[in-house]
Order: sequence, then structure tokens, then C-alpha cells
Amino acid sequence: MAVCRVCRQRAAVRLKYANLALCKQHFIEYFERRIFRTIKKYNMMREGDRVAVAVSGGKDSVALLYALSSLREKLKVELMGITIDLGIKGYSERCVQIAVRHYEHLSIPYEVVDVREYGFTVDELKGLRRSPCSACGVIKRYLLNKVSREMGARVLATGHNLDDFLAVVLQAYIRGDLRLLSKLKPSLPPIDGLIAKVKPLVETPEKDALLYVLLRGLEYMEEECPYAVGATSIEYKALLNQLEDKHPGIKLQMLRAFLDRIQPLITYEEPPLAICEKCGEPSSGSICQFCRLLELSRTKLAKNRCRKLN
Amino acid sequence: MAVCRVCRQRAAVRLKYANLALCKQHFIEYFERRIFRTIKKYNMMREGDRVAVAVSGGKDSVALLYALSSLREKLKVELMGITIDLGIKGYSERCVQIAVRHYEHLSIPYEVVDVREYGFTVDELKGLRRSPCSACGVIKRYLLNKVSREMGARVLATGHNLDDFLAVVLQAYIRGDLRLLSKLKPSLPPIDGLIAKVKPLVETPEKDALLYVLLRGLEYMEEECPYAVGATSIEYKALLNQLEDKHPGIKLQMLRAFLDRIQPLITYEEPPLAICEKCGEPSSGSICQFCRLLELSRTKLAKNRCRKLN
Repeated sequence: MAVCRVCRQRAAVRLKYANLALCKQHFIEYFERRIFRTIKKYNMMREGDRVAVAVSGGKDSVALLYALSSLREKLKVELMGITIDLGIKGYSERCVQIAVRHYEHLSIPYEVVDVREYGFTVDELKGLRRSPCSACGVIKRYLLNKVSREMGARVLATGHNLDDFLAVVLQAYIRGDLRLLSKLKPSLPPIDGLIAKVKPLVETPEKDALLYVLLRGLEYMEEECPYAVGATSIEYKALLNQLEDKHPGIKLQMLRAFLDRIQPLITYEEPPLAICEKCGEPSSGSICQFCRLLELSRTKLAKNRCRKLN
Repeated sequence: MAVCRVCRQRAAVRLKYANLALCKQHFIEYFERRIFRTIKKYNMMREGDRVAVAVSGGKDSVALLYALSSLREKLKVELMGITIDLGIKGYSERCVQIAVRHYEHLSIPYEVVDVREYGFTVDELKGLRRSPCSACGVIKRYLLNKVSREMGARVLATGHNLDDFLAVVLQAYIRGDLRLLSKLKPSLPPIDGLIAKVKPLVETPEKDALLYVLLRGLEYMEEECPYAVGATSIEYKALLNQLEDKHPGIKLQMLRAFLDRIQPLITYEEPPLAICEKCGEPSSGSICQFCRLLELSRTKLAKNRCRKLN
């Protein structure tokens, strides 16, 4: 029987990459301490910061919310929650309920942003872009940035874990996407109207986030988003996990190799951001992607209405 | 029934990455034309060159030998063969026989280098290094360079295919091995006593090399080297093929991304090579890795002999 390395009680988890067995209590401490160290290492937060935590209701963002809540006195930061209701039928409603119950349980002020207020839902965007995921990404990036800034936050924290991060790194290597390779950072400073963005779980394997919510008995949305089925990122994560199974620790090695050695050599000149002519938010073109999406969806909805009348 | 895109006869192969079906004859032409183009693109050979082809007897080097033989008039080069007998029991002998039969069939002058002349075999190196593969790599690099230069070749061509090349790229990404990332080139100029080295199959998928030898009915060593079982490179190739199965063409995309975009940004200052104090060959230290290996194997063999006497 494996025993906890700290207290010699019966172990609840075994972390192969660290050759470490821990009981429930000491795993929770280990998990939160790693997040604290990641935050310090990448200067993700400063004392007195107002930190908006993006909570989708999935395991990663729920784990992030609770870990930051445990750490908020040590970090001396003020937390607030932000959740986007994407209007995905049979999915978004439950995600939002879970997030809200956690905010209230932890007494964290929060805001739920309903995309319907903007006149559409993600379901209605099907067929407008190559995949609803790319449209959804535009919406989330836009609203999380805008609303967390309006809420008075200096930093936006998201639940991207080690596996999420490496799946994008691998994809960027394969595509030779220098822009992505240069921008993929655990901590991005505020720039041109974009709020600072941090990924405190970047050194946390996805499986550990799951263990954390399970061991703490936290409710989370177990189902994948219906649109995520067959997503490339899921495939890349599976490949990386195949490697990890045979070579425990290889994912953390790949992260260090990328951040410490390869990324510093990648140069990419990004032109400064402009201001969207329609909404006034930061944009790479004269009209931002969110406003273009809005326009597209209005045209589509109008066409559909005409079809019904005819 | 799939038909050949060129002649509309029944197709013998279907290349998913190119969405192309071809009959036997037109596949062979396609395969050789791609090698011709790779050679021209990377300036691998010049008119009048003497080119040493390293033939192990495996499918890749046999395919390379026959393709270069078909192309030698078009390329205006002179070919010679070089094969290392590594002394791996139940394996090397058959490899050498196959290589020699092909040289004689094609009337290509050749040399077989027997490592026993240096006083050891790869079998005897077991346990001297972490894996016999790393020792074997040292031996092959050393002898191929030395002997092909002594044979009067300007260029040494090896059968490394697309899959071999990408497995090393992936490994170098994961380890953050900047030295390897900067040196991994389809064509390396001669430098400090090292002969020019070229990989004419770098744009050729491994499966195509197999199809080429099968369709041409060429004898090749079907068995893997007994020491290669479980090699990391085989594992990485399998991962890349999983990706290729779902996204035909992704391996070629990854090659282009690496060579055209990522590698040019990788800077690594390699100190100039020295001369080995023992053998006079190029070396990164005062004594080259080959001579160090020789020393190690002599000590080990002497010890074994003492043990037998006692």
C-alpha cells in the first residue's frame, strides 16, 4: 500500500511524474503550493490586485477558483468571478449554475455575462465559421477582457492547465506559427487596452486538476462542450499523454524546454493594436473580430427569418 | 477502383497526403522525381561529384541506392557504396550480404568496413553506454565519415527519411535541444574535416520508401535491428503517424514549418572542431568519441578475459 510521503497515512493519489504519493490533505496542499509558486515565478499577481477569475464550470476553472480562494490571504489579492453564458443549449445553463453556486459558497462577487444580450448565442453561429469553437474563442476573449476590465480587475486568471498549454505549443510547432509561439506565455502584461492575463495552472497537469476537484468533492461540469468533440486540441493532448505514460515528467520537460530555451529565440513583430470603429475595444483591424461576428450573425438571422416568412 | 492519375491504368498505390493514386511505373517515377527535386532544392550534389551512399541493407538505404542509380546520369554524379559491418550477431551478416548484392547488381564500386578490424563489435559494447544505439551512432558517424572521405567522395548520402527526420525534430523540441535543432539539416556542407552530408529522402515518407522497394521487388533487410526494440525514435514516429492518419500531409507541413520558419531563428554557437590526439580525425574534444569507445571496449574485454582465467 502506498503511503503519503508527508504523514505516512494511506495515500490517496500517486503522481508518477514526481514519483510522489500523497494523502488527500497533503495533495491539496501540494496542489495549491504549486499554484502559489507558479504565480510568484511568473509575477502573475501583485499585492492588492483585483483578480478576475474566469470560471466556465469545468474542472480546471473550478479548481483554480478554489485554489486561489485558499491562497487569497497569502497572495493578498481580491478575487472576483466572471462567467460567460454562451447560450449552448443543454450545456451553458448547467455550467453557469455550477459557477454561480461556487461563487456564492465562497462569497466571491461575480458577474455572469449572457451573450444573448448581444443578440445571439453560440448555437446560432454554427456554420458561420469553420468551427463554432473558433467563433466561441473570439467571443470569450472579447467579453472576458471587456467585462473583467469594467469590473475593475487588473488581472484576468484563466484555468488553462499544462496539457492545454502544451497542446497549443505542439500545434504551433507543427504549423510553424511564429506569432502563436511568441505570444504563448503563462503571464501576459496589460497592453493596448487588453487586461493582464495569467494562467496559474500552466504547470499543473490536467489530471491533477481533476484529482483536486474530486478529492475536495467540488461540483463541476463533467460533460465536454458538445462542440468540442473531435477538436484537434483533444487529439494533441492524447498524444502528449501517450508520451507521458511512457516517460513520466516529459510534459513538464517540454514546458521548460519551450519557455526557457525555444521561445526566447522566437521573434515576431506584432503591429500595435488599433481601436475597433464600432465598439471601441482593442482590435487588430479597423473592426474587431467580435463585431464582425455580430454582423455575420445578424445577416444570418435576418435571412433565416425571411426564409420562414416565405 | 482507383486508377493512376497519369495513365488511367489500375493504381498500385494511393498517397493520401497528396490525394494521388498511381500505377507501379508512375509511382516509381514520382518517387525518383521527388528525390531529384529534393537534391536540387538543397544543393545536395553538384555535377561531377563523387557521392558515397551509405547502405545498411534496410528499405530506406536500398531505395536511396536504386533511386540515385536511376538518377545518376541526370545528376551527372558518380556513385560508390559504403556499408559498415557492425558485428551484430544474426543481423549484420545478412545486412551486408544484401547491400553487396545490390552494389554488384548495379555495378557500383563499394567498400565494406568491418568494425572487427578495430578490435570490437557492437554486441561487445552492450552495457558500456546507456544504450548500444548511442555507441552504434558514434561508430557509424565516425566510420562513414572517415572511409567515404578516404574513398575520394565529396558527399555522403544517407537514407534518413521524412519520418526519421521529424522524430528527431520532435525529440529536440521536447528536450529544448538547441544544438540539435540548429544542426538538423537536409544538407550539411563539409566542415573541419567532416565530409558533406545529405539526406535525399528527407521529403520522402517512410511508407513510400517501403512501397518503392516492394514495387521494384528489391531485396531488403525486413527485420529491425535487435537493439532498436523500444527505441524512442520508433515511439515518436508512431505518434507522428497517428497524426498523419487523421490529417494527411501534416508531416510534410511540420517539416516545412521547421525548416522554413523555426530553424532559421534557432541560434547555437558550436565551437570549431579539434583533431583527435589518437586518430587524427575531427573531434569535439581532445580525444574523439570513437577512440574513447575503443578504449572502453578494450578495458572491458581485458576484464572479461581475466574473469575467464580466474
